[in-house]
Amino acid sequence: MATQGTTEEAVIRRRIEDHALALREMDLEAVMSIYAPGVVSFDITPPLWYRGLEAKRKAWLEAFAAYRPPLGYEIREPTIVVGDDVAFSHSLNRVSATLKSGAHTDFWLRWTACFRKIDGNWLIVHEQVSVPVDLQQRSAVLDLEP
Amino acid sequence: MATQGTTEEAVIRRRIEDHALALREMDLEAVMSIYAPGVVSFDITPPLWYRGLEAKRKAWLEAFAAYRPPLGYEIREPTIVVGDDVAFSHSLNRVSATLKSGAHTDFWLRWTACFRKIDGNWLIVHEQVSVPVDLQQRSAVLDLEP
Repeated sequence: MATQGTTEEAVIRRRIEDHALALREMDLEAVMSIYAPGVVSFDITPPLWYRGLEAKRKAWLEAFAAYRPPLGYEIREPTIVVGDDVAFSHSLNRVSATLKSGAHTDFWLRWTACFRKIDGNWLIVHEQVSVPVDLQQRSAVLDLEP
Repeated sequence: MATQGTTEEAVIRRRIEDHALALREMDLEAVMSIYAPGVVSFDITPPLWYRGLEAKRKAWLEAFAAYRPPLGYEIREPTIVVGDDVAFSHSLNRVSATLKSGAHTDFWLRWTACFRKIDGNWLIVHEQVSVPVDLQQRSAVLDLEP
Protein backbone atom coordinates (compact mmCIF):
# COMPACT_ATOMS: atom_id res chain seq x y z
CA MET A 1 0.00 0.00 0.00
CA ALA A 2 1.32 3.45 -0.87
CA THR A 3 2.22 5.75 1.98
CA GLN A 4 0.86 9.28 2.04
CA GLY A 5 4.27 10.51 0.83
CA THR A 6 4.35 8.32 -2.26
CA THR A 7 0.72 9.16 -3.07
CA GLU A 8 1.44 12.89 -2.91
CA GLU A 9 4.61 12.39 -4.92
CA ALA A 10 2.55 10.66 -7.62
CA VAL A 11 0.13 13.61 -7.65
CA ILE A 12 2.99 16.07 -8.16
CA ARG A 13 4.60 13.84 -10.79
CA ARG A 14 1.31 13.83 -12.72
CA ARG A 15 1.07 17.63 -12.43
CA ILE A 16 4.56 17.94 -13.88
CA GLU A 17 3.75 15.55 -16.72
CA ASP A 18 0.60 17.55 -17.48
CA HIS A 19 2.70 20.73 -17.40
CA ALA A 20 5.14 19.33 -19.95
CA LEU A 21 2.25 18.26 -22.18
CA ALA A 22 0.68 21.72 -21.93
CA LEU A 23 3.99 23.30 -22.89
CA ARG A 24 4.37 21.05 -25.92
CA GLU A 25 0.86 21.97 -27.00
CA MET A 26 1.48 25.65 -26.15
CA ASP A 27 -1.79 25.58 -24.19
CA LEU A 28 -1.33 28.73 -22.13
CA GLU A 29 -4.24 28.20 -19.69
CA ALA A 30 -3.14 24.63 -18.97
CA VAL A 31 0.46 25.81 -18.52
CA MET A 32 -0.67 28.50 -16.08
CA SER A 33 -2.75 26.11 -13.96
CA ILE A 34 0.35 24.84 -12.12
CA TYR A 35 1.29 28.25 -10.64
CA ALA A 36 0.13 29.79 -7.37
CA PRO A 37 -0.90 33.43 -7.13
CA GLY A 38 2.19 35.38 -6.11
CA VAL A 39 4.57 32.87 -7.74
CA VAL A 40 8.14 34.19 -7.66
CA SER A 41 10.06 33.34 -10.83
CA PHE A 42 13.79 33.29 -11.41
CA ASP A 43 13.51 32.74 -15.16
CA ILE A 44 16.05 31.76 -17.81
CA THR A 45 15.98 35.26 -19.36
CA PRO A 46 15.90 38.71 -17.69
CA PRO A 47 14.74 40.25 -15.43
CA LEU A 48 16.46 38.86 -12.32
CA TRP A 49 13.05 37.93 -10.90
CA TYR A 50 9.37 38.64 -11.25
CA ARG A 51 6.27 37.93 -9.21
CA GLY A 52 2.69 36.95 -9.90
CA LEU A 53 0.53 35.18 -12.44
CA GLU A 54 0.25 38.07 -14.88
CA ALA A 55 4.03 38.41 -15.17
CA LYS A 56 4.33 34.63 -15.58
CA ARG A 57 1.64 34.59 -18.26
CA LYS A 58 3.40 37.40 -20.12
CA ALA A 59 6.70 35.49 -20.01
CA TRP A 60 5.10 32.35 -21.46
CA LEU A 61 3.28 34.37 -24.11
CA GLU A 62 6.58 35.89 -25.20
CA ALA A 63 8.25 32.46 -25.22
CA PHE A 64 5.43 30.93 -27.26
CA ALA A 65 5.57 33.87 -29.68
CA ALA A 66 9.21 33.09 -30.43
CA TYR A 67 8.63 29.48 -31.56
CA ARG A 68 6.68 27.65 -34.23
CA PRO A 69 4.32 25.07 -32.72
CA PRO A 70 4.64 22.41 -31.55
CA LEU A 71 7.29 23.08 -28.94
CA GLY A 72 9.63 20.23 -28.03
CA TYR A 73 9.70 20.21 -24.21
CA GLU A 74 10.86 17.18 -22.24
CA ILE A 75 11.07 17.11 -18.44
CA ARG A 76 13.62 14.35 -17.80
CA GLU A 77 13.04 12.16 -14.73
CA PRO A 78 12.15 14.79 -12.13
CA THR A 79 13.39 14.18 -8.59
CA ILE A 80 10.49 15.01 -6.26
CA VAL A 81 10.76 15.50 -2.50
CA VAL A 82 7.46 15.83 -0.62
CA GLY A 83 6.66 17.00 2.90
CA ASP A 84 3.26 17.57 4.48
CA ASP A 85 2.39 20.70 2.49
CA VAL A 86 5.76 21.74 1.06
CA ALA A 87 7.52 19.97 -1.80
CA PHE A 88 10.10 20.55 -4.47
CA SER A 89 11.15 19.03 -7.76
CA HIS A 90 14.27 19.32 -9.85
CA SER A 91 14.99 18.10 -13.33
CA LEU A 92 16.86 18.70 -16.54
CA ASN A 93 14.46 19.81 -19.27
CA ARG A 94 15.14 19.70 -23.00
CA VAL A 95 13.86 22.48 -25.25
CA SER A 96 13.90 21.50 -28.90
CA ALA A 97 12.07 23.80 -31.25
CA THR A 98 12.09 25.91 -34.36
CA LEU A 99 12.15 29.66 -33.94
CA LYS A 100 9.81 31.82 -36.04
CA SER A 101 12.96 32.84 -37.94
CA GLY A 102 13.34 29.20 -39.02
CA ALA A 103 16.44 28.58 -36.91
CA HIS A 104 16.40 25.40 -34.87
CA THR A 105 17.25 25.51 -31.18
CA ASP A 106 17.96 22.52 -28.96
CA PHE A 107 19.32 22.85 -25.44
CA TRP A 108 18.98 21.52 -21.90
CA LEU A 109 17.98 23.73 -18.99
CA ARG A 110 17.86 23.17 -15.24
CA TRP A 111 14.46 23.48 -13.53
CA THR A 112 13.75 23.71 -9.81
CA ALA A 113 10.07 23.97 -8.85
CA CYS A 114 8.96 24.63 -5.27
CA PHE A 115 5.39 23.67 -4.35
CA ARG A 116 2.91 24.35 -1.58
CA LYS A 117 -0.31 22.47 -1.07
CA ILE A 118 -2.96 25.19 -1.17
CA ASP A 119 -6.62 24.25 -0.65
CA GLY A 120 -5.71 20.66 -1.48
CA ASN A 121 -3.84 21.58 -4.69
CA TRP A 122 -0.08 21.36 -5.20
CA LEU A 123 0.93 24.65 -6.85
CA ILE A 124 4.30 26.15 -7.75
CA VAL A 125 5.02 29.14 -5.52
CA HIS A 126 8.62 29.55 -6.72
CA GLU A 127 10.69 28.30 -9.61
CA GLN A 128 14.13 28.78 -11.01
CA VAL A 129 15.04 28.03 -14.63
CA SER A 130 18.53 28.48 -16.00
CA VAL A 131 21.45 27.41 -18.12
CA PRO A 132 25.03 27.60 -16.84
CA VAL A 133 27.23 30.52 -17.86
CA ASP A 134 30.91 31.08 -18.48
CA LEU A 135 31.60 34.01 -16.14
CA GLN A 136 34.89 34.97 -17.81
CA GLN A 137 33.48 34.95 -21.34
CA ARG A 138 30.10 36.24 -20.08
CA SER A 139 28.48 33.67 -22.33
CA ALA A 140 25.53 31.30 -21.93
CA VAL A 141 26.55 27.65 -22.20
CA LEU A 142 23.87 26.00 -24.33
CA ASP A 143 25.64 22.92 -25.69
CA LEU A 144 25.76 20.77 -22.56
CA GLU A 145 23.97 17.42 -22.34
CA PRO A 146 23.07 15.34 -19.29
CA MET B 1 4.60 32.25 21.37
CA ALA B 2 6.25 31.08 18.18
CA THR B 3 4.61 28.25 16.28
CA GLN B 4 6.69 25.27 15.22
CA GLY B 5 6.76 26.71 11.70
CA THR B 6 8.22 30.06 12.71
CA THR B 7 10.74 28.39 15.03
CA GLU B 8 11.96 26.13 12.23
CA GLU B 9 12.02 29.09 9.85
CA ALA B 10 14.25 30.94 12.32
CA VAL B 11 16.59 27.94 12.46
CA ILE B 12 16.91 27.88 8.67
CA ARG B 13 17.34 31.67 8.51
CA ARG B 14 20.21 31.36 10.97
CA ARG B 15 21.77 28.56 8.90
CA ILE B 16 21.61 30.78 5.83
CA GLU B 17 23.15 33.71 7.70
CA ASP B 18 25.95 31.45 8.93
CA HIS B 19 26.42 30.20 5.36
CA ALA B 20 26.81 33.76 4.05
CA LEU B 21 29.31 34.54 6.82
CA ALA B 22 31.30 31.38 6.00
CA LEU B 23 31.38 32.39 2.32
CA ARG B 24 32.64 35.88 3.15
CA GLU B 25 35.37 34.34 5.30
CA MET B 26 36.06 31.66 2.66
CA ASP B 27 35.83 29.10 5.45
CA LEU B 28 35.40 25.95 3.35
CA GLU B 29 34.44 23.56 6.18
CA ALA B 30 31.81 25.98 7.52
CA VAL B 31 30.49 26.51 3.98
CA MET B 32 30.21 22.76 3.43
CA SER B 33 28.33 22.16 6.71
CA ILE B 34 25.02 23.26 5.15
CA TYR B 35 24.97 20.51 2.48
CA ALA B 36 23.54 17.00 2.73
CA PRO B 37 25.39 13.99 1.36
CA GLY B 38 24.15 13.46 -2.17
CA VAL B 39 23.35 17.16 -2.68
CA VAL B 40 22.38 17.82 -6.31
CA SER B 41 23.72 21.15 -7.57
CA PHE B 42 22.61 23.19 -10.55
CA ASP B 43 25.46 25.70 -10.30
CA ILE B 44 26.08 29.07 -11.95
CA THR B 45 28.88 27.63 -14.12
CA PRO B 46 29.12 24.30 -16.00
CA PRO B 47 28.50 21.41 -15.82
CA LEU B 48 24.68 21.22 -16.10
CA TRP B 49 24.58 19.47 -12.72
CA TYR B 50 26.69 17.58 -10.26
CA ARG B 51 26.05 15.44 -7.22
CA GLY B 52 27.64 14.93 -3.83
CA LEU B 53 29.78 16.64 -1.24
CA GLU B 54 33.12 16.08 -2.97
CA ALA B 55 31.93 17.72 -6.19
CA LYS B 56 30.44 20.61 -4.18
CA ARG B 57 33.69 21.04 -2.23
CA LYS B 58 35.67 21.08 -5.48
CA ALA B 59 33.36 23.75 -6.93
CA TRP B 60 33.78 26.00 -3.89
CA LEU B 61 37.55 25.45 -3.87
CA GLU B 62 37.71 26.56 -7.49
CA ALA B 63 35.52 29.59 -6.77
CA PHE B 64 37.63 30.58 -3.75
CA ALA B 65 40.81 30.14 -5.83
CA ALA B 66 39.53 32.74 -8.31
CA TYR B 67 39.08 35.55 -5.76
CA ARG B 68 41.19 37.54 -3.33
CA PRO B 69 39.82 37.28 0.22
CA PRO B 70 37.58 38.47 1.68
CA LEU B 71 34.71 37.64 -0.64
CA GLY B 72 31.75 40.01 -0.71
CA TYR B 73 28.70 37.76 -0.45
CA GLU B 74 25.32 39.11 0.61
CA ILE B 75 22.17 36.95 0.80
CA ARG B 76 19.38 39.51 0.48
CA GLU B 77 16.20 38.88 2.51
CA PRO B 78 15.68 35.17 1.83
CA THR B 79 12.08 33.99 1.51
CA ILE B 80 11.81 30.76 3.50
CA VAL B 81 8.93 28.28 3.29
CA VAL B 82 8.95 25.48 5.86
CA GLY B 83 6.99 22.22 6.07
CA ASP B 84 7.42 19.38 8.55
CA ASP B 85 10.74 18.12 7.20
CA VAL B 86 10.95 19.79 3.77
CA ALA B 87 11.70 23.47 3.23
CA PHE B 88 13.01 25.83 0.62
CA SER B 89 14.50 29.28 0.44
CA HIS B 90 14.98 31.73 -2.40
CA SER B 91 16.92 34.95 -2.51
CA LEU B 92 18.95 37.33 -4.61
CA ASN B 93 22.60 37.18 -3.59
CA ARG B 94 25.23 39.79 -4.36
CA VAL B 95 28.77 38.73 -5.20
CA SER B 96 31.23 41.58 -4.93
CA ALA B 97 34.87 40.67 -5.06
CA THR B 98 38.27 41.15 -6.59
CA LEU B 99 39.57 38.44 -8.85
CA LYS B 100 43.16 37.24 -8.47
CA SER B 101 43.81 39.09 -11.74
CA GLY B 102 42.90 42.34 -9.95
CA ALA B 103 39.66 42.84 -11.86
CA HIS B 104 36.66 43.71 -9.75
CA THR B 105 33.43 41.80 -10.20
CA ASP B 106 30.05 42.76 -8.78
CA PHE B 107 26.83 41.01 -9.79
CA TRP B 108 23.58 39.61 -8.43
CA LEU B 109 22.66 35.95 -8.73
CA ARG B 110 19.49 34.00 -7.99
CA TRP B 111 19.68 31.27 -5.35
CA THR B 112 17.13 28.55 -4.62
CA ALA B 113 18.01 26.18 -1.77
CA CYS B 114 15.92 23.08 -1.00
CA PHE B 115 16.25 21.59 2.48
CA ARG B 116 15.38 18.38 4.26
CA LYS B 117 15.48 17.88 8.00
CA ILE B 118 17.87 14.97 8.45
CA ASP B 119 18.57 13.68 11.96
CA GLY B 120 17.24 16.97 13.34
CA ASN B 121 19.42 19.11 11.04
CA TRP B 122 18.18 21.21 8.15
CA LEU B 123 20.52 20.46 5.24
CA ILE B 124 20.51 21.51 1.59
CA VAL B 125 19.76 18.49 -0.62
CA HIS B 126 19.39 20.55 -3.80
CA GLU B 127 20.27 24.04 -4.94
CA GLN B 128 20.16 26.08 -8.08
CA VAL B 129 22.33 29.17 -8.64
CA SER B 130 22.16 31.24 -11.80
CA VAL B 131 22.15 34.52 -13.63
CA PRO B 132 19.72 35.21 -16.49
CA VAL B 133 20.91 34.86 -20.08
CA ASP B 134 20.13 36.49 -23.40
CA LEU B 135 19.29 33.44 -25.52
CA GLN B 136 19.66 35.25 -28.85
CA GLN B 137 23.04 36.78 -28.00
CA ARG B 138 24.03 33.67 -25.99
CA SER B 139 25.34 36.02 -23.34
CA ALA B 140 25.20 36.05 -19.54
CA VAL B 141 23.37 39.09 -18.16
CA LEU B 142 25.45 40.27 -15.21
CA ASP B 143 24.43 43.92 -14.86
CA LEU B 144 20.94 43.51 -13.40
CA GLU B 145 20.03 44.82 -9.96
CA PRO B 146 17.05 43.98 -7.74
